[in-house]
Amino acid sequence: MDLPNWRERLYIIIFFTNTPAGKLFDTWLLVVVTASLVVVMLDSVAAINLHYGTLLRALEWGFTTIFAIEYLLRIYSHPEPRKYVWSFYGVIDLLSILPAFLALIFADAQYLLVIRIIRLLRVFRVLKLTPYLSQANFLLVALRGSRQKIIVFLLSVSTLIVIYGTLMYVIEGPPHGFSSIPKSIYWAVVTLTTVGFGDIVPSTPLGQALATVVMITGYSIIAVPTGIFTAELANAMRADTLVHECPSCRKPSHEPGSAFCGRCGSQLFQQKVDTPAEQ
Amino acid sequence: MDLPNWRERLYIIIFFTNTPAGKLFDTWLLVVVTASLVVVMLDSVAAINLHYGTLLRALEWGFTTIFAIEYLLRIYSHPEPRKYVWSFYGVIDLLSILPAFLALIFADAQYLLVIRIIRLLRVFRVLKLTPYLSQANFLLVALRGSRQKIIVFLLSVSTLIVIYGTLMYVIEGPPHGFSSIPKSIYWAVVTLTTVGFGDIVPSTPLGQALATVVMITGYSIIAVPTGIFTAELANAMRADTLVHECPSCRKPSHEPGSAFCGRCGSQLFQQKVDTPAEQ
Amino acid sequence: MDLPNWRERLYIIIFFTNTPAGKLFDTWLLVVVTASLVVVMLDSVAAINLHYGTLLRALEWGFTTIFAIEYLLRIYSHPEPRKYVWSFYGVIDLLSILPAFLALIFADAQYLLVIRIIRLLRVFRVLKLTPYLSQANFLLVALRGSRQKIIVFLLSVSTLIVIYGTLMYVIEGPPHGFSSIPKSIYWAVVTLTTVGFGDIVPSTPLGQALATVVMITGYSIIAVPTGIFTAELANAMRADTLVHECPSCRKPSHEPGSAFCGRCGSQLFQQKVDTPAEQ
Amino acid sequence: MDLPNWRERLYIIIFFTNTPAGKLFDTWLLVVVTASLVVVMLDSVAAINLHYGTLLRALEWGFTTIFAIEYLLRIYSHPEPRKYVWSFYGVIDLLSILPAFLALIFADAQYLLVIRIIRLLRVFRVLKLTPYLSQANFLLVALRGSRQKIIVFLLSVSTLIVIYGTLMYVIEGPPHGFSSIPKSIYWAVVTLTTVGFGDIVPSTPLGQALATVVMITGYSIIAVPTGIFTAELANAMRADTLVHECPSCRKPSHEPGSAFCGRCGSQLFQQKVDTPAEQ
Repeated sequence: MDLPNWRERLYIIIFFTNTPAGKLFDTWLLVVVTASLVVVMLDSVAAINLHYGTLLRALEWGFTTIFAIEYLLRIYSHPEPRKYVWSFYGVIDLLSILPAFLALIFADAQYLLVIRIIRLLRVFRVLKLTPYLSQANFLLVALRGSRQKIIVFLLSVSTLIVIYGTLMYVIEGPPHGFSSIPKSIYWAVVTLTTVGFGDIVPSTPLGQALATVVMITGYSIIAVPTGIFTAELANAMRADTLVHECPSCRKPSHEPGSAFCGRCGSQLFQQKVDTPAEQ
Repeated sequence: MDLPNWRERLYIIIFFTNTPAGKLFDTWLLVVVTASLVVVMLDSVAAINLHYGTLLRALEWGFTTIFAIEYLLRIYSHPEPRKYVWSFYGVIDLLSILPAFLALIFADAQYLLVIRIIRLLRVFRVLKLTPYLSQANFLLVALRGSRQKIIVFLLSVSTLIVIYGTLMYVIEGPPHGFSSIPKSIYWAVVTLTTVGFGDIVPSTPLGQALATVVMITGYSIIAVPTGIFTAELANAMRADTLVHECPSCRKPSHEPGSAFCGRCGSQLFQQKVDTPAEQ
Repeated sequence: MDLPNWRERLYIIIFFTNTPAGKLFDTWLLVVVTASLVVVMLDSVAAINLHYGTLLRALEWGFTTIFAIEYLLRIYSHPEPRKYVWSFYGVIDLLSILPAFLALIFADAQYLLVIRIIRLLRVFRVLKLTPYLSQANFLLVALRGSRQKIIVFLLSVSTLIVIYGTLMYVIEGPPHGFSSIPKSIYWAVVTLTTVGFGDIVPSTPLGQALATVVMITGYSIIAVPTGIFTAELANAMRADTLVHECPSCRKPSHEPGSAFCGRCGSQLFQQKVDTPAEQ
Repeated sequence: MDLPNWRERLYIIIFFTNTPAGKLFDTWLLVVVTASLVVVMLDSVAAINLHYGTLLRALEWGFTTIFAIEYLLRIYSHPEPRKYVWSFYGVIDLLSILPAFLALIFADAQYLLVIRIIRLLRVFRVLKLTPYLSQANFLLVALRGSRQKIIVFLLSVSTLIVIYGTLMYVIEGPPHGFSSIPKSIYWAVVTLTTVGFGDIVPSTPLGQALATVVMITGYSIIAVPTGIFTAELANAMRADTLVHECPSCRKPSHEPGSAFCGRCGSQLFQQKVDTPAEQ
């Protein structure tokens, strides 16, 4: 293999972690991203903004410039730029610089720069946290498997919320804080999810009685998404045993590390030579 | 079969989705129902009501007329009208037009038109979301199976709530906001379900101590309906695993890990030949 | 058997439900208990007390007299009075009349009459809700089985609450509403259980940072009692299979209705004669 | 073995519970620790401090002196003092006396003496609550096993909270109480964990709409840590079922329902004779 040219070298450094240069690049990237997040958050605190506003603005533009240059380098060094631009990370990287330019028009948009926090997902690669990612995979499998039940659940809850909210609007009405149906629906969400801000509360006995129904509903149906997710996760974890169909009895999964089927005793893998238990 | 007459054609279009006309009908129905819901909600917002009140009222009567005509068409085209009128959908469809007429007497009743949201359950048919419905079936099976335990749970919680509420009334009393036993029971529900509006709060140390007991009770017993539902759901899903018909007695499913039929003792898998471990 | 005398007849009517007279007695008892509860609750509402106070007081004394007579009848008719007096129901029945007399000294004690609500547990017998009681038995078995883990959990949570509360007292202090350690511990309970009244809130940035830790702790460890109870309940329900040790392989439980062991194929019950699968 | 000298006697009394003297020592220790905790808490209540402040201070110094002497005795009597000083209990014992001295500089630090509550973990030894500890072991095993999934979960939730908080800051802004991004992030935590103090609430319709998203997110994802922990606990408890040593390779436990050892293929139960189903 001939010497990699600069484009390929950049590609390896920027997109991979397995070389010392690549690892250094990723570590510095994380440091810079975290620093830029802290700067954005500090800039929003009035007391700090007063004294250090100009410094923070300068730093923000510095960071934005760094990320813009990095984004261009990524596009340049990637063998298939279009594939990168439309990938999840590509979109996030672009959204990490856009708000700075949007802020020239809408002053508050700059705070959307916190989208950079998603860039910190790279931390898993840098710190060799692959076991964490495989564990996260369980969670994603369980979420995908329960997707349909969860959508049914969300639709049912939305229906309940609209009905509860409207009933409360009819019962309590604007004089008591429930000034419109959308606001009453907001109250129903606050109550059903057991958050209970207390900014709007029922005052009439009938309203409080209905509120009781809403609260007990919310309290009980927490069980549903929990049950859905737990059942799926328990299945996914049980299926992380050895997923190999026994040639004899077709038992689909076995304890990790098994050589023999727990159900019928047959060998799981033909290419294994005689073991004492088989003679 | 001779050509279907108009009554049968209407029946097929209105009640089924498998023809292009039927699908078009259902899609437009969903659009109109959603539009009518939005109109009802907007009409409740004072600012919008001021400017567009007359327009919204006109739209609402238009929608009510459309749904009334549709309801009559359903009764006309259905082979057994009485069966439709008393079915779940039939009742919902009637309740979707009644409040408009009730509103001539009780001004606020019109908002009960949001009952139309239940008509949106048709969305499952239109978007061919049958997999969602079969997944929803798991949820319903699990709910039905746990029905008795949940009723016992609700009765126990009601008893606790009455006792906690009354104790708090005796401890804190009207001077501190707990103006009657029903209101104290309302506070107990707000606290036990961890909603915590904050409209009524205990001020005395003894009252706050009792409130601590109520809160820890509520926090801990969320586990009960969750456990009931999760266990039932896991069972419903697990009973789906070893689905293998016994060759002898045709028992359709067996405990996971079975080698032999629990009902008749036959081997479940004929192809099992002697394995070394059995000699 | 000679004719039952009055004492035995009363015993059968009062303590059992299987005769028409017994069932009538129990039904009327439930009606009277519920009526007395409603009277106690209404009496606490100031508006109603103003107009109907004397009537409600008269009704309460009427009910107390009825229950006192009933209690004496129970003691008289029971073959072993001491056994009844010290049983759970006996104690509840006594506590259901005592507060009325205590009220002659402490005016508010009369409201403790709501202890009568526990007498409503009889409703299960009257309405033949035995399936509900056997389902409730699962819940009790699961609760008993998880008793030790739950105590360990409660002790750990108590420790956390004292430490969080004290830290918040040191950080925020009396100027901000955290006027003593007990009150700060009360705040910690309100926050950890996610109730969040809002009567006391942290104002300093450090206090809000600690509050974030408390909230995320509370949010996450709801998982613990839920997990404990769910695992125990799932076990209890699975153990409601046929609990019979297989004479061959000693498998402790089997699918309900099994005649053969799912693991080894042996007959579970020796006294069964030949079935086709055995030839 | 010659007579134990004083150093060894102290070691046995202080560090163990199996002698009468040791048990007496531990019981008195618990009493003294609890008394010191009560004194610290009472000292923080302004009303009590006013009247009994000097007495409480004297008691606190008394307790601190007792614990300091006890700490020195422990170091003296332990065969390997360094091992004790750096152990968990050693650190806790030291932290139980330090704040009293810190309080000479920082007045409020004395309240950190509540760290003594962790010393109460000794209660398990005194009351022979070893079954409780073995049950607690299940909990710890389940927590350790789910550690990685929980960290992934916490990182995802942190990301969501930062994004929700910043969005709300951009939407509502300082005029409505969201005075900085850190404060908005605090609001996001309060809302996502369903605590809902109500000290900061959204006022604009768009803000309330976003709040709805935050609340439904928080309400739904309670399912995740619960599912993780429940699945792990159920596994830990289930892995306790088929505890049967394989006669060949002595593998101590097997998948429930196994007839054959997953490692070596031998039959697990020798006494299995021919069953009819196998011929």
